[in-house]
Amino acid sequence: MESEFVRWLRARLPSRPPLGVGPGDDAAVLRLGEAGAQAVVTCDLIAEGVHFRLDRDAPRRIGRKALAVNLSDLAAMAAVPVAAFLAVLLPRDEARQLAPQLWQGLQPLADQYDLAIAGGDTNTWDGPLVISATLIGETIPPGPLLRSGARPGDQLLVTGRFGGSQLGHHLDFEPRVREALLLVERYTVHAGMDCSDGLALDVSRLAEESGCGAVIDPEAIPLAEAAGQLAKTSGRTAIEHALGDGEDFELLLAAPPDEAKRMLAEQPLPVTLTRVGEFIDQPGLWQNQGERRVKLEPLGYEH
Amino acid sequence: MESEFVRWLRARLPSRPPLGVGPGDDAAVLRLGEAGAQAVVTCDLIAEGVHFRLDRDAPRRIGRKALAVNLSDLAAMAAVPVAAFLAVLLPRDEARQLAPQLWQGLQPLADQYDLAIAGGDTNTWDGPLVISATLIGETIPPGPLLRSGARPGDQLLVTGRFGGSQLGHHLDFEPRVREALLLVERYTVHAGMDCSDGLALDVSRLAEESGCGAVIDPEAIPLAEAAGQLAKTSGRTAIEHALGDGEDFELLLAAPPDEAKRMLAEQPLPVTLTRVGEFIDQPGLWQNQGERRVKLEPLGYEH
Repeated sequence: MESEFVRWLRARLPSRPPLGVGPGDDAAVLRLGEAGAQAVVTCDLIAEGVHFRLDRDAPRRIGRKALAVNLSDLAAMAAVPVAAFLAVLLPRDEARQLAPQLWQGLQPLADQYDLAIAGGDTNTWDGPLVISATLIGETIPPGPLLRSGARPGDQLLVTGRFGGSQLGHHLDFEPRVREALLLVERYTVHAGMDCSDGLALDVSRLAEESGCGAVIDPEAIPLAEAAGQLAKTSGRTAIEHALGDGEDFELLLAAPPDEAKRMLAEQPLPVTLTRVGEFIDQPGLWQNQGERRVKLEPLGYEH
Repeated sequence: MESEFVRWLRARLPSRPPLGVGPGDDAAVLRLGEAGAQAVVTCDLIAEGVHFRLDRDAPRRIGRKALAVNLSDLAAMAAVPVAAFLAVLLPRDEARQLAPQLWQGLQPLADQYDLAIAGGDTNTWDGPLVISATLIGETIPPGPLLRSGARPGDQLLVTGRFGGSQLGHHLDFEPRVREALLLVERYTVHAGMDCSDGLALDVSRLAEESGCGAVIDPEAIPLAEAAGQLAKTSGRTAIEHALGDGEDFELLLAAPPDEAKRMLAEQPLPVTLTRVGEFIDQPGLWQNQGERRVKLEPLGYEH
């Protein structure tokens, strides 16, 4: 789900009764049944030449990615994965070899997250490989983690490291499902999302959805090794790669100061939590430059 | 969901707790939340050159079809439509014109069935148009209408007319959502599905899922005008078109004899209900030829 489509939908859509949260967050929340069970639904498609390249990327890693990007959206909502539905277009001549290889990437990840592959639709055609996945998850007691709850003063925390994902991380990342569930169970987290389109762009979205602004401290961003590698030849700094590359699939979180302090001290996750900024009254995206606060371009991938 | 993929999935999938009905029916049934609300989920993708052709079919009708094929799957399960998730790949050069036209086809159909378009993922690329839709519905008290409940002696009833759908019906059909809901509310219906791949093939699947056989009375099949039109030049009979063309998107139903009699007499739908055969002990698909019962080829579209 991304901005242009979301804006387009929003302009057209009345908010209807069965929907908790509609377009605009990482996934939609549906209330189903009398007891009001909350289902979280996410839908992401990956296609040859846009999200992967078959001449470079092993089909197994592509199959894995098709699920992983959606698991990352469930993580962003702090939802427990339940079931996946896959729609696949296989290039006719390679269908027989490709299908089992894609499966070999999908299945272990589904097993790992106890996700049932519950249905789908496969077709062969004369075009390139396309995999669309819809995942359904269930919220846990604190409810879904939304983009809209950040408040001025909240600290901006992130999991993991950023930048250079195109060197491999975009295929092999670990969706932060368990991390998100643990955090919302143990701590007060006001808002969250996953970082898929670029740290700067996604933080600006999180702030915008929350009706506030955000300031990033670029020096504080944990850099992936790949960000440094790219910087050697790209003409951009490692920090620029971290801010704009996208596909890091780490969590961005807004937590009140005391709670953020506790999270940072306790470091309850297998991956490091880092403070990279905070939410502020002033709308827009900003960066600290020494003592000054200056505008920061929301670098990233606009669909 | 179709046979090869379904068999492939089935061979690999354990049946997991949250799933009511997994692959093999028209849609999956998920039990969510404590009260056991049942969500029905269906996922169908349509692509340029496979399910439509942009040089021939208006984008508005293509957008409509993307939802309608999935609504037909919800109808096949007797589920009330709740929400749709769309993943779209737009050809880069035509994206701006295409998107609003697709929407103009989607939206009225969604409104008509009170279906919320709750999220999605759009991308532009250098390939052809692809639309994948995942729809979520809710069951009503008698529970989902499955393929597996037909019993020998049950009558095979169908809604509407068959054959020649490629002349236009495959784009403009009315998904039988309300018809299915009305029927399961008022009558005992043992099993049902929608006819998307061909009457003969789909009846053989319905029988197979129910662990019995079926016999069709070819002369009894209600023929669409388009089936006759095609027969003039195709070298096949109108009945052959009705048996094998597919994309009729009518309901196939198994009802006990007394109940079937009542349904046929009362004709409670805006569309005609017709008896076209019955379910039998003997496995396989058969046809009545005068006094004899002979094998019938399960004609249709195998994905």
